[in-house]
Amino acid sequence: MVVIMEPGADESQIEQVIENLNQRGFDVHRSSGVQQTVLGAIGVQPGFDERIIRVLDGVSDVQRVTEPYKFASRSWKGEPSIFDINGVTVGGKEVILVAGPCSVESEDQINATAAHVAAHGATFLRGGAFKPRTSPYSFQGLGVEGLALMRAAGDRYGLNVITEVTDVSKVELVYRFADVFQVGARNMQSFDLLRELGRTDKPVFLKRGLAASIEEWLMAAEYVMSEGNQQVILCERGIRTFETATRNTFDLSAVPVVKNKSHLPIFADPSHATGIRDRVIPMARAAVAAGADGIIVEVHPEPAKALSDGPQSLYFDQYVSLVAQIRDIARAIGRSIATVAHS
Amino acid sequence: MVVIMEPGADESQIEQVIENLNQRGFDVHRSSGVQQTVLGAIGVQPGFDERIIRVLDGVSDVQRVTEPYKFASRSWKGEPSIFDINGVTVGGKEVILVAGPCSVESEDQINATAAHVAAHGATFLRGGAFKPRTSPYSFQGLGVEGLALMRAAGDRYGLNVITEVTDVSKVELVYRFADVFQVGARNMQSFDLLRELGRTDKPVFLKRGLAASIEEWLMAAEYVMSEGNQQVILCERGIRTFETATRNTFDLSAVPVVKNKSHLPIFADPSHATGIRDRVIPMARAAVAAGADGIIVEVHPEPAKALSDGPQSLYFDQYVSLVAQIRDIARAIGRSIATVAHS
Amino acid sequence: MVVIMEPGADESQIEQVIENLNQRGFDVHRSSGVQQTVLGAIGVQPGFDERIIRVLDGVSDVQRVTEPYKFASRSWKGEPSIFDINGVTVGGKEVILVAGPCSVESEDQINATAAHVAAHGATFLRGGAFKPRTSPYSFQGLGVEGLALMRAAGDRYGLNVITEVTDVSKVELVYRFADVFQVGARNMQSFDLLRELGRTDKPVFLKRGLAASIEEWLMAAEYVMSEGNQQVILCERGIRTFETATRNTFDLSAVPVVKNKSHLPIFADPSHATGIRDRVIPMARAAVAAGADGIIVEVHPEPAKALSDGPQSLYFDQYVSLVAQIRDIARAIGRSIATVAHS
Amino acid sequence: MVVIMEPGADESQIEQVIENLNQRGFDVHRSSGVQQTVLGAIGVQPGFDERIIRVLDGVSDVQRVTEPYKFASRSWKGEPSIFDINGVTVGGKEVILVAGPCSVESEDQINATAAHVAAHGATFLRGGAFKPRTSPYSFQGLGVEGLALMRAAGDRYGLNVITEVTDVSKVELVYRFADVFQVGARNMQSFDLLRELGRTDKPVFLKRGLAASIEEWLMAAEYVMSEGNQQVILCERGIRTFETATRNTFDLSAVPVVKNKSHLPIFADPSHATGIRDRVIPMARAAVAAGADGIIVEVHPEPAKALSDGPQSLYFDQYVSLVAQIRDIARAIGRSIATVAHS
Repeated sequence: MVVIMEPGADESQIEQVIENLNQRGFDVHRSSGVQQTVLGAIGVQPGFDERIIRVLDGVSDVQRVTEPYKFASRSWKGEPSIFDINGVTVGGKEVILVAGPCSVESEDQINATAAHVAAHGATFLRGGAFKPRTSPYSFQGLGVEGLALMRAAGDRYGLNVITEVTDVSKVELVYRFADVFQVGARNMQSFDLLRELGRTDKPVFLKRGLAASIEEWLMAAEYVMSEGNQQVILCERGIRTFETATRNTFDLSAVPVVKNKSHLPIFADPSHATGIRDRVIPMARAAVAAGADGIIVEVHPEPAKALSDGPQSLYFDQYVSLVAQIRDIARAIGRSIATVAHS
Repeated sequence: MVVIMEPGADESQIEQVIENLNQRGFDVHRSSGVQQTVLGAIGVQPGFDERIIRVLDGVSDVQRVTEPYKFASRSWKGEPSIFDINGVTVGGKEVILVAGPCSVESEDQINATAAHVAAHGATFLRGGAFKPRTSPYSFQGLGVEGLALMRAAGDRYGLNVITEVTDVSKVELVYRFADVFQVGARNMQSFDLLRELGRTDKPVFLKRGLAASIEEWLMAAEYVMSEGNQQVILCERGIRTFETATRNTFDLSAVPVVKNKSHLPIFADPSHATGIRDRVIPMARAAVAAGADGIIVEVHPEPAKALSDGPQSLYFDQYVSLVAQIRDIARAIGRSIATVAHS
Repeated sequence: MVVIMEPGADESQIEQVIENLNQRGFDVHRSSGVQQTVLGAIGVQPGFDERIIRVLDGVSDVQRVTEPYKFASRSWKGEPSIFDINGVTVGGKEVILVAGPCSVESEDQINATAAHVAAHGATFLRGGAFKPRTSPYSFQGLGVEGLALMRAAGDRYGLNVITEVTDVSKVELVYRFADVFQVGARNMQSFDLLRELGRTDKPVFLKRGLAASIEEWLMAAEYVMSEGNQQVILCERGIRTFETATRNTFDLSAVPVVKNKSHLPIFADPSHATGIRDRVIPMARAAVAAGADGIIVEVHPEPAKALSDGPQSLYFDQYVSLVAQIRDIARAIGRSIATVAHS
Repeated sequence: MVVIMEPGADESQIEQVIENLNQRGFDVHRSSGVQQTVLGAIGVQPGFDERIIRVLDGVSDVQRVTEPYKFASRSWKGEPSIFDINGVTVGGKEVILVAGPCSVESEDQINATAAHVAAHGATFLRGGAFKPRTSPYSFQGLGVEGLALMRAAGDRYGLNVITEVTDVSKVELVYRFADVFQVGARNMQSFDLLRELGRTDKPVFLKRGLAASIEEWLMAAEYVMSEGNQQVILCERGIRTFETATRNTFDLSAVPVVKNKSHLPIFADPSHATGIRDRVIPMARAAVAAGADGIIVEVHPEPAKALSDGPQSLYFDQYVSLVAQIRDIARAIGRSIATVAHS
């Protein structure tokens, strides 16, 4: 931590700051220039609130030196994290496709979708059973029946199952059916939930919150990891800005930023980021070109009849042509589309 | 709902849209101009996703006509909602003061603070027992012990107790100690929690999410109200924008906007909005001048030693002078500071 | 400037950074902790781009120590700047009212408005002659005729005249008619214009840009001041955020922030910030309560017939009741409404 | 325009709105449902301010039906606009590379850069002679000498020259040296400048403003086009959001959105969007994958010594490998890199 004193700070103010820092366990290095004094506070105090020092008399500004997260950082683990999830390698050279409907609606719907995406490059099946919806009057998902249908479809077509968990009370239930827990954007800072997932042994697919900075997102990953579960996959899905022409603003630059700051794999979700299917295809291509380790897209046998997010779900044939384009772009940057190890 | 067709839309496209709307239960009024056709879809379909129509061929745009919430709206209830909470009237002519520390830290701390704020205008005591913190390494609250200390302090000094509940699993526990449930900004869209609180008989103090539009905030209130609990108090506490000179951007215009759209009381939290105590005082004054029904501020006997949010907590004497200023401003707009009915 | 090296930075990287800083004229103080080395770069280099150091090998982060502006800062001038503008004191104890129509439309309109606002507390007349409009098809102002009408009305009713200048080529013309140059939000970073105004001897009323941080706003003031003209009045008028319920988001916290960082007077414009007249009144009250040195509001004899911004213009009687409320709030915080010295 | 009346609006209110619309030249179609009345206002009134109707008694909301721009819209011109700029085709199947330094600094610097980029795919040379800088103390460009150096380098290496013009007073001068006028993000709404450029016969490269919605950006293009100059090239360069890990947030979804709403070519600028050279390469790839018609990147012979924007400028060898990657991605989506017609 670096403490920058005001140009006019006097000696007693400087000493008071130094004493305060010492009491809190920091070693202090003092550096006095012509105009200003700068104090370097050496020591690791995770979660320290810099504003405690900033409000002292004579202090102009306080800057953190170390990142506030540990397990999620590149300085903790220099090499990219690679996870094997039932034979699929996540975070390596291969680009992962996660596909499926927004919500599980029926046995036919999930089976048809699973069969189609498994035949065209996907290794993970997505689908919601408990849906957090902005309106209490919207379709809220099939619940446990939806989980069972997804599990059966995943098993039949050789796909890993990824589905959302919204509350601590549902962790045990979802654990029984899913291969990967999804934490949605609205729950990115539901810390009770993150901790609980950190005590399980299944990977956590952590979407970025609508208003979350990249640093806060990595702090949310840290909540999971500090409990022992190191398998976190990050997923950029759009942030909230003033622009209303798209549902959210897809912050694809987060891909190279996260790769620089963290060893965790990062995916991208062009369906939620853009909200309209015709924009999903170019933005899925862009995500792969930017270096994403995987993409997650919504696909539905009859988007016009979907009970949720139909407008952003791809038609089956659109999905096929998307995969073909992505395959070429992956190749252009020296990667390929992942396939299941045993198939 | 109003459907605006593209200038070049042909008859078959228009008919397809009309048929689609009819199937979904809307009556359709058609209005054809020289350039464009506009369809009025009459009927109430709460939670309807307009994008379903927007993606049809020939459609240029779709606009919702009715608000997506019902119980929270002014059209449902024209008069302001006034709640009696143990003898304190919320939402009427009087301005409410909620004050207390960020976290309950010890019996001495909460008692000293409660005694002080009760002696100077406050009718509600705030304080956190379960703290959602950005970092897993920060102080997380005293838990149930904190709840018990708050309850005792509230009883001793004649203050209502308001405290945060972060998860469904804690609702029953918090219910036993608190007079009002607080839902924090990070949980504004934790729908399981909102529903559960909607089934209780205690008021819900609902903070605005960092990235929540006013409409989404009222939808969150609707989650509580649609379960039966009509006692929701809204609280503006700052939104996330590009400006970093303050912790958040205090959107005080939300006060007149909410008063226009809803009958629910609206409070403001200048402590979290600004993050630095010297800015709390002018912004608390501004909140009252803008018409807020109450303010919630952090006060601590020794801010420099607070375990959380010390930098934005007021000193005791600052709190006293703030109350004096607010009293004058309330009077200037024809209001007064609330007092407990029986005292 | 403080340079934070990465935990693993080696000696040759540290030396390269030191050498680089020395070459650019900085003295360097080195402070090595267990984990990391921190370098304090002492020296004043206005406009230095910190990224030059940030991209060097082994550097983790670079933090600026001094503010990037000089004349606009509190450290340059500790006392608030107070300007006398033809007998009206700006920036002192008194709160200034600037009122008038969005655009000058006719002699009758500007005279009626000037007479009304002069009779009720205003000391400055606002009005646009050259209007920057989002659409090329909107009313663009009366031009020089509008300037002449404003000047005449100002003289007749004893009001200072403030009007917008949009381009270097118009500075000389506007100078002949106005007492204060207004720079609009869209031109806050039109640096050619700012420099030109800095070479004149009339005050500059500088609105904050829609996407401008407070720091960039003060840098824009610095462009004017570095050319010699120290009379800059800042005006908060709303920033662009995700919230669409108001035209912009009125960042009233900017008032205490600016008062802390700068000695310049700060005004607020609730008309442009909110965009709808019913919200102008509560937010004008809030601005005064927050400590603004003045407010600027749009008033029109017949808002329904205004050629621009009618919906946010106050009716004459609304203006009168607003002034009464503001007078009480100013008194509550120890201020009063300014009056013309000689009247 | 569609006017939505409040549920409780009475007949006299409805009639007043209809009369008001008629007076302003609209034909009105009335559609009354069980709950609400909706009025369709038919007629084209460019630049009409909908708030005029929204503030009338009994009105709940007003929605625009037609886009506010004409020449820039897809409904005005269905096919993509393709411009021939001295033998280079912009807006067609080929992807354009614009490259060069941030600022022209010397004859050697601009010649070396021009030679290098011309040898590796670029058809346009970029470079600033008049630099709008946030700080008045930063390097402001070589002025007319810089223009002459760029022109000479462009001629020698067969590159079109694109450079920024910041003020009406400089249009004539820049016209003599440049092939394309660049309008920077800070000037996107400098309407005097846009109009002046609309009266010339050279293409305008219009960067998106930091806080500009896509609609406002197209309105800025309309300012140029409504004066007669139809050759506008749009360029996405990042918008301002809460995220500070990148200089701006690169809104790449703007590419498919603009292609849907307008016939104008759209480019992307990953250098200004990200601000750090290591992020320029993945984001340039992403821009091409998203469908951009061209990219503009900063390249410098010695980035560490650049007088402006060195940290985001590519080294010569980085530029070469970027072009190779882009070539492959363009091919993957059926496009290629443009070359000069006569070479």
